Amino acid sequence: MSAASRLSIALVHYPVWNKNQEVVATAVTNLDIHDIARSARTYGISRYYIVTPVVEQQKLVEKIRLHWLEGWGATYNPKRKMALELLQTESSLDGALADIESRTGRRAKIVVTGAAGRANSVSFTELKQLMAGDPEEQYLLLLGTGWGLTEEIFDRGDYVLEPISGGSDYNHLSVRSAAAIMLDRIFG
Amino acid sequence: MSAASRLSIALVHYPVWNKNQEVVATAVTNLDIHDIARSARTYGISRYYIVTPVVEQQKLVEKIRLHWLEGWGATYNPKRKMALELLQTESSLDGALADIESRTGRRAKIVVTGAAGRANSVSFTELKQLMAGDPEEQYLLLLGTGWGLTEEIFDRGDYVLEPISGGSDYNHLSVRSAAAIMLDRIFG
Repeated sequence: MSAASRLSIALVHYPVWNKNQEVVATAVTNLDIHDIARSARTYGISRYYIVTPVVEQQKLVEKIRLHWLEGWGATYNPKRKMALELLQTESSLDGALADIESRTGRRAKIVVTGAAGRANSVSFTELKQLMAGDPEEQYLLLLGTGWGLTEEIFDRGDYVLEPISGGSDYNHLSVRSAAAIMLDRIFG
Repeated sequence: MSAASRLSIALVHYPVWNKNQEVVATAVTNLDIHDIARSARTYGISRYYIVTPVVEQQKLVEKIRLHWLEGWGATYNPKRKMALELLQTESSLDGALADIESRTGRRAKIVVTGAAGRANSVSFTELKQLMAGDPEEQYLLLLGTGWGLTEEIFDRGDYVLEPISGGSDYNHLSVRSAAAIMLDRIFG
């Protein structure tokens, strides 16, 4: 199996920080779904999970997914269909982990991402080496929304990925851009 | 000057192809403005031009820009202000070139991008070497919207940048994701 096919992405809408350091569930946005699915498909990623416990939001994601997979969108833009085939809604991080385990028989290693560095961060090079080390291991890359993933999520990570630096003092990429760059650095 | 400070980006809304191979002016989208401005700021790019000849669309961009630079948005999210300070509307590619020339005294080299390769494409490595070769040279990286930049634009390019490959047969990244990956490959 290629390394990319052993990695899944989860875009986490809960639990995340809001601007005032409160733990919230953020709203799903259409372009997060499309952009990250297209990046995931480009680099050969296994699955792209949208994680939200809010049932109405789950229904919205499913409506978008079915539009492009079975509805008018599937005929209008088959390339979009290819990307959104990777999409799956889960109500929690544990739901995504359970899905990977049911498909592969392996408990995925959790890789947490964020804009701030951590003492135990691994570099992109180190993550690539880790992935090459065991060709059966599964990985789940967690991306935050809002003002980022909470400590509860960081504490569950097997690894924390180093933040993306562009050589400036500005580290406020959109989650869509950050996802694209991360996949390119790992698999490009 | 850093290499990144000698590069500007133009997101071209005309002339581009639509799905039916007709030359059209596409609509400006809010998230193209924000995402690419944030990526540009992260990597230290000089300017981010939105190119559209449609006056109503120019006004829309200016309204968004002023909201974040001077309006309520400037206080709400100063980080967004830092990104949108790079934003500038131009009615044509020539307008963007003239602006660079008036600011720097140099006619920028045009680097065209697209999802398909060309016989005269330069690799990311070659572009970096070109940029290192003359520390005064200015560059303008053109990104297409819709179904991509027209031949008229490709013909004007000094260089065509190789398409981004993710190792799969799928090359349908969003322009927001493609911009992020390109900047990371050149300056990351």
